[in-house]
Amino acid sequence: MEQMLSSLERDFLQFVRKTMHMNEALNLMLWDLKTGAPKLGVELRAEAFGTLSAEVHAMSTSVQMKSYIDRLSEIAVYDTLSAITKKTLDEVKRKYEQNIHIPVGEYKEYMVLLANAGSVWEAAREKSDFAMFRPCLEQIVAFNRRFVDYWGYEGNRYNAHLDVHEPGMTVAILDDVFTKVKEHIMPLVKRVTEANDQPRTSFLFHYFPKDKQREVSLYLLKAMGYDFARGRLDETVHPFALSINRNDVRVTTAYYEHDFRKSVFSTIHEGGHALYEQNIAEELIGTPLCTAASGGIDESQSLFWEKMVGQHKGFWKYHYPALKEWNREQFDGVELEDFYRAIHFVEPSCIRLRSDEMTYQLHIIIRYEIEKALFNHELEVKDLPEWWNEKMDAYLGIAPPDDAHGVLQDVHWSLGLIGYFPSYALGYLYAAQFRNAMINDLPDFDAFVESGNVAPIRAWLTDNIHLHGRRKTPNELLRDVTGEGLNPDYLLRYFEQKYAEIYRL
Amino acid sequence: MEQMLSSLERDFLQFVRKTMHMNEALNLMLWDLKTGAPKLGVELRAEAFGTLSAEVHAMSTSVQMKSYIDRLSEIAVYDTLSAITKKTLDEVKRKYEQNIHIPVGEYKEYMVLLANAGSVWEAAREKSDFAMFRPCLEQIVAFNRRFVDYWGYEGNRYNAHLDVHEPGMTVAILDDVFTKVKEHIMPLVKRVTEANDQPRTSFLFHYFPKDKQREVSLYLLKAMGYDFARGRLDETVHPFALSINRNDVRVTTAYYEHDFRKSVFSTIHEGGHALYEQNIAEELIGTPLCTAASGGIDESQSLFWEKMVGQHKGFWKYHYPALKEWNREQFDGVELEDFYRAIHFVEPSCIRLRSDEMTYQLHIIIRYEIEKALFNHELEVKDLPEWWNEKMDAYLGIAPPDDAHGVLQDVHWSLGLIGYFPSYALGYLYAAQFRNAMINDLPDFDAFVESGNVAPIRAWLTDNIHLHGRRKTPNELLRDVTGEGLNPDYLLRYFEQKYAEIYRL
Repeated sequence: MEQMLSSLERDFLQFVRKTMHMNEALNLMLWDLKTGAPKLGVELRAEAFGTLSAEVHAMSTSVQMKSYIDRLSEIAVYDTLSAITKKTLDEVKRKYEQNIHIPVGEYKEYMVLLANAGSVWEAAREKSDFAMFRPCLEQIVAFNRRFVDYWGYEGNRYNAHLDVHEPGMTVAILDDVFTKVKEHIMPLVKRVTEANDQPRTSFLFHYFPKDKQREVSLYLLKAMGYDFARGRLDETVHPFALSINRNDVRVTTAYYEHDFRKSVFSTIHEGGHALYEQNIAEELIGTPLCTAASGGIDESQSLFWEKMVGQHKGFWKYHYPALKEWNREQFDGVELEDFYRAIHFVEPSCIRLRSDEMTYQLHIIIRYEIEKALFNHELEVKDLPEWWNEKMDAYLGIAPPDDAHGVLQDVHWSLGLIGYFPSYALGYLYAAQFRNAMINDLPDFDAFVESGNVAPIRAWLTDNIHLHGRRKTPNELLRDVTGEGLNPDYLLRYFEQKYAEIYRL
Repeated sequence: MEQMLSSLERDFLQFVRKTMHMNEALNLMLWDLKTGAPKLGVELRAEAFGTLSAEVHAMSTSVQMKSYIDRLSEIAVYDTLSAITKKTLDEVKRKYEQNIHIPVGEYKEYMVLLANAGSVWEAAREKSDFAMFRPCLEQIVAFNRRFVDYWGYEGNRYNAHLDVHEPGMTVAILDDVFTKVKEHIMPLVKRVTEANDQPRTSFLFHYFPKDKQREVSLYLLKAMGYDFARGRLDETVHPFALSINRNDVRVTTAYYEHDFRKSVFSTIHEGGHALYEQNIAEELIGTPLCTAASGGIDESQSLFWEKMVGQHKGFWKYHYPALKEWNREQFDGVELEDFYRAIHFVEPSCIRLRSDEMTYQLHIIIRYEIEKALFNHELEVKDLPEWWNEKMDAYLGIAPPDDAHGVLQDVHWSLGLIGYFPSYALGYLYAAQFRNAMINDLPDFDAFVESGNVAPIRAWLTDNIHLHGRRKTPNELLRDVTGEGLNPDYLLRYFEQKYAEIYRL
């Protein structure tokens, strides 16, 4: 009996590993598409991508998978499984149950819809014409409303979508947290933007050649401790980090020759994601646990590096002299203090991706409120632009000049990503909460950053977060590391202190 | 009935297309491994590669594939199929029959052996110690000897391996052809190397920076008519071209900063392969016909461009002034005639890959004779180094100083590639035979090359060869294009005339 069990467990892990290998191929295809695949090969590539994706989906909802799940879930069997197998089984089951209730025909129809949605959205954004995207978005929303019923939910209907990206997250929690954030940040933004002593920013937009920016990016990744023997840096349009396998985690960045901030901060941000993936425990390789715990936890790692380290004054005290060497003219006469203040310039913008860290929170809250209303049938797609613009005016005091700068700006809905936006705000909240716990353990945090020695910081993140991969839920992880549940006070206090100092409030 | 048949045909083509999609993923993985995948990610990548390869193998020998083959091969059904489906069926059947007779356990064992053979061979070559590689090679040979029995063969046992890479090729044909080649080339090489008027070559080895060489490579590919919207150029160690899909055919090259010939001629060579793959008829996409007709025909296209165009005096009359601009010092005082003679310098070398085009033929013939003896049990692996060195002495008049420069120099056997070497020599023979046919159709061939207008040449190759993909066997193609079977006279006459002029014999 013992022998049979262990062979069943082994076969199951082997089957799961096979799906991970297919995912590795898919991820490499994605990376290639975004970093330099010849443009006329893309159409055929999309076809091959579709075939492999369908194969992975078929495996994850197959009779064989069901049989593994059933046999391994029997209590007598379950108790004999290794800890990793148990968690793997949980994760596989979660995916199985998400997918199995969707009728096959409907799933295929949805995939075809999404395959075309991207170009419809792009064309609509190009022409700034929401009406062009509307029929497509209506279908995407209709499918996803039905998915909620297939999946089932507790409490609010939108919880079903939140749970996909952030297991355990609910509207009840977010309503509470986002209300606090909104109430705190709106007056703070007002005080900051009305402060007399505004940073000067014109030097930010001087010409900084691409090849020099690439050198800076390589320098920064090295300084962070990113392992180039297990990764590489490439150029793309919308930066991302991607784990092709645990020992091949790639970073991408974008170079704007008249705004070096784009590459500097997106490199640090994506480097933060990459450090997470590079430092997951080796024993999780080949399982679905070898990835970030959730969208929010993943963002917490990129944002920790981008904001809590990369926008730390000590960080630039150490690295600014090196940066200056790459472009002396640009920084001639710009003191460290000027530089530091400039990278913290706060200004409401219509575009989420061009926002400073404080108004960014309001952009996310707007999207959260809109999705919540959509999935509770309190809002229909046709009324989206109006809602969008009203909320922008209420929270940020600006009105988008057109749909391209409003409701059409984000790619997410065209990809079928519903319930993902809150991950960004959660990333900030988690990052600040982790920072607080880290400073308790490493009281010399500031001194480490200032001396260019981030190894203890990286080691802390690895031990407390990275190593665990997806073995813990976001909430388990947060409680284990910080001793409490989600608490927005850390981020709000961090903003308050930081901006009071920078803007001399 | 009509309806059922066409749905059967459609399903079959869909099933085949799925295997092609898996191959697309595998090819991208290969390209990535050879052009910049992080070195520590390779081990996990190899695992994923193994999974997908096994999947393709399983599909190609599946019960489902057998059922398609059986049902579509019934005469009443077969006659209704489209011409492309018929050829696809033939090709799929050929692969099915090659693989189905190998017991599954044995195939897996062989795959495991090959997975490790590469590093064993590399270590042995590093240490120049054949004994290190011998046990591994003995196993590879033993497997392949058994494969011959599984596959079956007509006439000579080695025919089974020749047929894998060059359908229809036999020992009877090659013995005859290679004897002629050997008898002609050996005395010609002797006359050339003993000629009084030797080219001066020292200028070839000046410093030529990598980035400039890359510009030259891009320039040359453009001049050949390679479509960059459906391809790209990257750096690698051993140059290759690879069709990831028909609209994504990538070229790689290597830059030696003290021998620019490497990048110039490998770029033209691989560009020749790429032009073939880029110009296969669109209707063959998604079938196994969307590739070169055979190893030999594939090499004929790369060698046609490298040798018949890229080493044409007119080619350099047109392009040499541009080349000089990239590195003025190097070519200062080097006239076109000096340059042209230098790139035709003939000198026997121990290493195949460093050989000139004439002694190269003898390298291939040695490998052919050795493989033939091995698979007819006239030679055992333990005696390989001795045979190798004796043949090198007999045909080229030089003795390898050690195994690294002798029997261990080529990667092929460690990859399980048996019967592939003749493709290189066949490539030369086909290329010269095609050239003769082309000149009949395009009497202004020389003038086209000299004026930098290679479009008519490319169009001729496309119409006569590229478009057909794998729809014709090598021999059908050769007969359709040149009106006769394999005839070595064209290559021998070409060498005779060219070298008599260059060496003023």
